[in-house]
Amino acid sequence: MAFEHTLTVRFHEADRAGIAFFGRVFEYCHTAFEEMLMAAGDNLASVFDEGGWGMPLVHVEADYARPMGLSQRLVVSLEVERVGERSVTFVFRVTGQEDGELRATVKMIHAFVSGDLENMKSRPVPERLVSGLRKLGLVD
Amino acid sequence: MAFEHTLTVRFHEADRAGIAFFGRVFEYCHTAFEEMLMAAGDNLASVFDEGGWGMPLVHVEADYARPMGLSQRLVVSLEVERVGERSVTFVFRVTGQEDGELRATVKMIHAFVSGDLENMKSRPVPERLVSGLRKLGLVD
Amino acid sequence: MAFEHTLTVRFHEADRAGIAFFGRVFEYCHTAFEEMLMAAGDNLASVFDEGGWGMPLVHVEADYARPMGLSQRLVVSLEVERVGERSVTFVFRVTGQEDGELRATVKMIHAFVSGDLENMKSRPVPERLVSGLRKLGLVD
Amino acid sequence: MAFEHTLTVRFHEADRAGIAFFGRVFEYCHTAFEEMLMAAGDNLASVFDEGGWGMPLVHVEADYARPMGLSQRLVVSLEVERVGERSVTFVFRVTGQEDGELRATVKMIHAFVSGDLENMKSRPVPERLVSGLRKLGLVD
Repeated sequence: MAFEHTLTVRFHEADRAGIAFFGRVFEYCHTAFEEMLMAAGDNLASVFDEGGWGMPLVHVEADYARPMGLSQRLVVSLEVERVGERSVTFVFRVTGQEDGELRATVKMIHAFVSGDLENMKSRPVPERLVSGLRKLGLVD
Repeated sequence: MAFEHTLTVRFHEADRAGIAFFGRVFEYCHTAFEEMLMAAGDNLASVFDEGGWGMPLVHVEADYARPMGLSQRLVVSLEVERVGERSVTFVFRVTGQEDGELRATVKMIHAFVSGDLENMKSRPVPERLVSGLRKLGLVD
Repeated sequence: MAFEHTLTVRFHEADRAGIAFFGRVFEYCHTAFEEMLMAAGDNLASVFDEGGWGMPLVHVEADYARPMGLSQRLVVSLEVERVGERSVTFVFRVTGQEDGELRATVKMIHAFVSGDLENMKSRPVPERLVSGLRKLGLVD
Repeated sequence: MAFEHTLTVRFHEADRAGIAFFGRVFEYCHTAFEEMLMAAGDNLASVFDEGGWGMPLVHVEADYARPMGLSQRLVVSLEVERVGERSVTFVFRVTGQEDGELRATVKMIHAFVSGDLENMKSRPVPERLVSGLRKLGLVD
């Protein structure tokens, strides 16, 4: 099962070469992640306000296959690769909506913390997140 | 007549206070402008590739009424205030999709140039743009 | 008196035309504002952590004179135009370090609030800010 | 040998948690890369204008060790890991200027192309780049 979100390469995201700056792909994939949370009935604002926990990235990577051109519609497809004790790994495929061709694959590993910035402590994966993923059929 | 585009405040756009950084409103309004061009059957990539002209901003301004909070859906409404000989003025209203409350009003004045960066020359408003605006009912 | 900060147009900030996206000028001027606060012995992180107040923008505007090209060094010059009861107006001039030519002039009007996002209340200009401006000779 | 560049986490780069959005680290490392090119007497604008080649990323990755907090000064240290036939691998270490503690390690693999976006062709690593790296002592 995958969660899909469609977005468009905007003028302020495209570089001198007329293609999305490579770092933008992480914004695109995180955007799909945010939409997935909202589809699960949650959102990042309330995680911060009520949840008392955060989910910093510990590792990310991207492989670029083809340029993401200005004004192109892209489909970001999110899957859960692994739910560990203290981390969750998401994988994303970014493809062109029109041509169906792969633009990039991205991996993001989130850890989980409680407490404020000065006093962060590692914590297990929150049940609130896992039940959201389950609701969308992204985990068993 | 107005052209409307809906978007969402993303995590990478929100600041320490949990609201969109003030400069983001210009990205939001330019995004609505890009969608308007696409709705008119045009887009910025082809303007640059084929058009041989550009449309730099000469003046922009924004008045902020209420914060644009993380994960909020916003409606950007674009209107043409004035089509001059050598410039076009767009006005935008950004409102909350759920609460209908005004977030910001923005004005953008575009000039028009031909030639490359080293040798830019002012030129009249391209008919290609005006006919696009007319097609959408944004000008008479 | 003016406070000056020098910065460079980065690849991820330049657009298809090879010049800084127009909205970037607000990031450049806010960066100069942040450096000014640090030069005055303060910074935005501690304002948020300890200060209990924020300083949202209520109005901004920019006039663009010349393109800000990729890799160009720019000097941002900050002046205080007005300290009111409940707002402070800053003006910025952005010029090329090498050619001395004006790129843009920017105005930013900050208001001041206390409380959290849900319960913001207008408040007078904090003495902590004014004394910082005075220390740098930006106000009498 | 390493090339070092110091920069600061800006307000518009920090997220709701008061730390740089994770994707920003790629902007920071690319900024160090741009400064390295300029130190070698070159820059990206002239590569695009005169060079007739580009250097798209084919793979990037980051490991995050500690948060990059708002207003913190960071030192980005660039090293060349490998110069291949058709790609160059750069590695970056981002540390706090004050505390010396590691924030992130980043890897970027560039390929090289000639021709325009519609008609890109792989090409060998340009001698112009290698001689720049050699000039700075980054390769033998």
